[in-house]
Amino acid sequence: MALINDNFIILSETYLFSEIARKVTVYKEADPSTNIIRLGIGDVTRPLASAVVEALHHAVDEMGQANTFRGYGPEQGYDFLRQTIVNHDFASRGIKISSDEIFVSDGAKSDTGNFGDILGVDNIIAVTDPVYPVYVDTNVMAGRAGKQGNNGAWGKIIYLPCTIENQFIPELPEKRADIIYLCYPNNPTGTTLKRAELKKWVDYAREHEAIILFDAAYESFISEPDVPHSIYEIEGAKDVAIEFRSFSKTAGFTGLRCGYTVVPKTVTARSKKLERIPLNRLWNRRQTTKFNGTAYIVQRAAEAVYSIEGQQQVKETIEYYMHNAALIRKGIEQKGIPCFGGVNAPYIWLKTPDHISSWQFFDRLLHEVNVVGTPGVGFGPHGEGYFRLTAFGSYEQTTEAMQRIANWKL
Amino acid sequence: MALINDNFIILSETYLFSEIARKVTVYKEADPSTNIIRLGIGDVTRPLASAVVEALHHAVDEMGQANTFRGYGPEQGYDFLRQTIVNHDFASRGIKISSDEIFVSDGAKSDTGNFGDILGVDNIIAVTDPVYPVYVDTNVMAGRAGKQGNNGAWGKIIYLPCTIENQFIPELPEKRADIIYLCYPNNPTGTTLKRAELKKWVDYAREHEAIILFDAAYESFISEPDVPHSIYEIEGAKDVAIEFRSFSKTAGFTGLRCGYTVVPKTVTARSKKLERIPLNRLWNRRQTTKFNGTAYIVQRAAEAVYSIEGQQQVKETIEYYMHNAALIRKGIEQKGIPCFGGVNAPYIWLKTPDHISSWQFFDRLLHEVNVVGTPGVGFGPHGEGYFRLTAFGSYEQTTEAMQRIANWKL
Repeated sequence: MALINDNFIILSETYLFSEIARKVTVYKEADPSTNIIRLGIGDVTRPLASAVVEALHHAVDEMGQANTFRGYGPEQGYDFLRQTIVNHDFASRGIKISSDEIFVSDGAKSDTGNFGDILGVDNIIAVTDPVYPVYVDTNVMAGRAGKQGNNGAWGKIIYLPCTIENQFIPELPEKRADIIYLCYPNNPTGTTLKRAELKKWVDYAREHEAIILFDAAYESFISEPDVPHSIYEIEGAKDVAIEFRSFSKTAGFTGLRCGYTVVPKTVTARSKKLERIPLNRLWNRRQTTKFNGTAYIVQRAAEAVYSIEGQQQVKETIEYYMHNAALIRKGIEQKGIPCFGGVNAPYIWLKTPDHISSWQFFDRLLHEVNVVGTPGVGFGPHGEGYFRLTAFGSYEQTTEAMQRIANWKL
Repeated sequence: MALINDNFIILSETYLFSEIARKVTVYKEADPSTNIIRLGIGDVTRPLASAVVEALHHAVDEMGQANTFRGYGPEQGYDFLRQTIVNHDFASRGIKISSDEIFVSDGAKSDTGNFGDILGVDNIIAVTDPVYPVYVDTNVMAGRAGKQGNNGAWGKIIYLPCTIENQFIPELPEKRADIIYLCYPNNPTGTTLKRAELKKWVDYAREHEAIILFDAAYESFISEPDVPHSIYEIEGAKDVAIEFRSFSKTAGFTGLRCGYTVVPKTVTARSKKLERIPLNRLWNRRQTTKFNGTAYIVQRAAEAVYSIEGQQQVKETIEYYMHNAALIRKGIEQKGIPCFGGVNAPYIWLKTPDHISSWQFFDRLLHEVNVVGTPGVGFGPHGEGYFRLTAFGSYEQTTEAMQRIANWKL
């Protein structure tokens, strides 16, 4: 008799963004003439850079000719891309990472989700709260979460609150944490950790033999000098940290699918016999067994992001989005609503006024001004009373949305 | 203190094809002038069909324009592809599958590997032996395999021998099996199950509430009428079978990455409380949480495989490979070596002469005639004494390889 993984049935069936999409669809069906502006899901809207488009066309032509056709590539990614990543994202900042510590994939969602495969079920997980739901949900699936309480928090997971009260700077856990997810610049709050703050976490991990899973998907939005672009800028991090990177937001690859994960050979965790096992070897085994590499044409596209033209073009797109971010910040502030982020990240995190709940704010914003955002509570218990807007819309739509919000009788 | 998943360290570090690649590299480095012909790994060599190339160029252009750009797609795949799959691969054979039972992915390796996520650890796994190593290795990682014996077999896994003695037709298991992997046309043996044989498995699964994970990656190579293209051609299969499909071999997508998995809403497995839970719901939750969809441009490429031109072009490529298969069969038979497959599959499975072991045969073939194949024992204990050659080389190389083998003093 076949059995399911029971951890799946303790998980609520709907993923946050599916639930939002459903609500919007229901509203739209009731009034099809409504002009809804979506500043909800963190999806980009600008087209691919022309350097990327050119690289894709060229690679497609290679695939159409027998002498340049490529079949299975290395599961870890092609050397041309791994080496380019090493040079541009690490060596240029004085960080020594070798190309066999880079694992190219179809995106950071897959990698942060799948990374748990190589980790024991008994690890205690810590997450900042609010947090990207994938970290929590995938640990529920793996059986590391315990039981869910009334506020939605899971009994075995350590939640590190990030709220106005602590200026969104999480405190070190009081109880033992083995695996710590940190995402900076942060999704959903748009806030950052400065070097000295991040160093506390690296020191904690070294002292307690914990592993930090560092999600740097929004690295390219950093504008302030004291914000680290990579956790490996912090001394000692190469012994305790895995870093996830993505081309999704950097270069508009959400529909193209490419990211990479850095697993330094010096990062180890313990076996049950307490041997220190390098995670690089295990992740390599996982990827070679359960993954068959990212499309060759997509890897050529990612390579083109690092070309001189590519760098200039993606920089312009990021400036475009960050201009939107500034507009949103200004509009929200003028409304007298406290807001955060939007300086080193494409997300603006606002405190809902008058103790309105996150979902109430979502419903009112949708129904009264036809703007879609993301309820903060969808990212965890300490997101209640907060709301996320993203800078990924078009300039015209963002302006229009902020105009509507300015006139909104909240 | 962070802990690893100990199941990873009981697994041998090297995946079969990495080990073969290593041996070839060592040999090639010793004598760089050697002209090695690779009939080993099952990778295609013919370029993408021109209908596919055109669709890719068109989709790339869409991604380069703001008004046609696509960001995140549905994790399950775009409707245009899911519906096309339903029409061409199922409705055309009288099989009723709905588009929300189709999950498009980056390939069958990912899906067969990841599918275990939604299944309980206590399921008893059965595999035909020899078998595609991914089925076994991913169950070792998940803790379903028990301990490994001296012959390489895992204690908790049921191995169903497929050898000359039973004409490669596996017998139903004597002990309880909950999850049964069947791959037909078979990798590595190239053999098939006819309708009546496959029906026995569906009946077994229905009687014992087992689930069949049916890998149909080689479906398009079928040439004989009594060989089912889909397990859903068998009455009752829609209650007990998941089917994995791939564009890798059908249309040369090994470097492009696209496949799909069929999870009928009627397939259920039991929770610990013995409720029947539909696997469609669980797989949907898995994919929406740990996967972000397949590249839009790749889905357009897959769609083009089903166009009139695409169908004609991929048919020609398959005929090209199957012509190679016939050449290999003929050459091996003329050598007086028993061989199988190569009629409904691109694989030729031969019995090594004079009780030479699989790896001895590999080494001699590599060193004496500079041809690379795959040792049968790499696919499981009952593959010992067998060897796999593939039809995916070029016509010229295949002819040359068979010429060398004809002159080989074995």
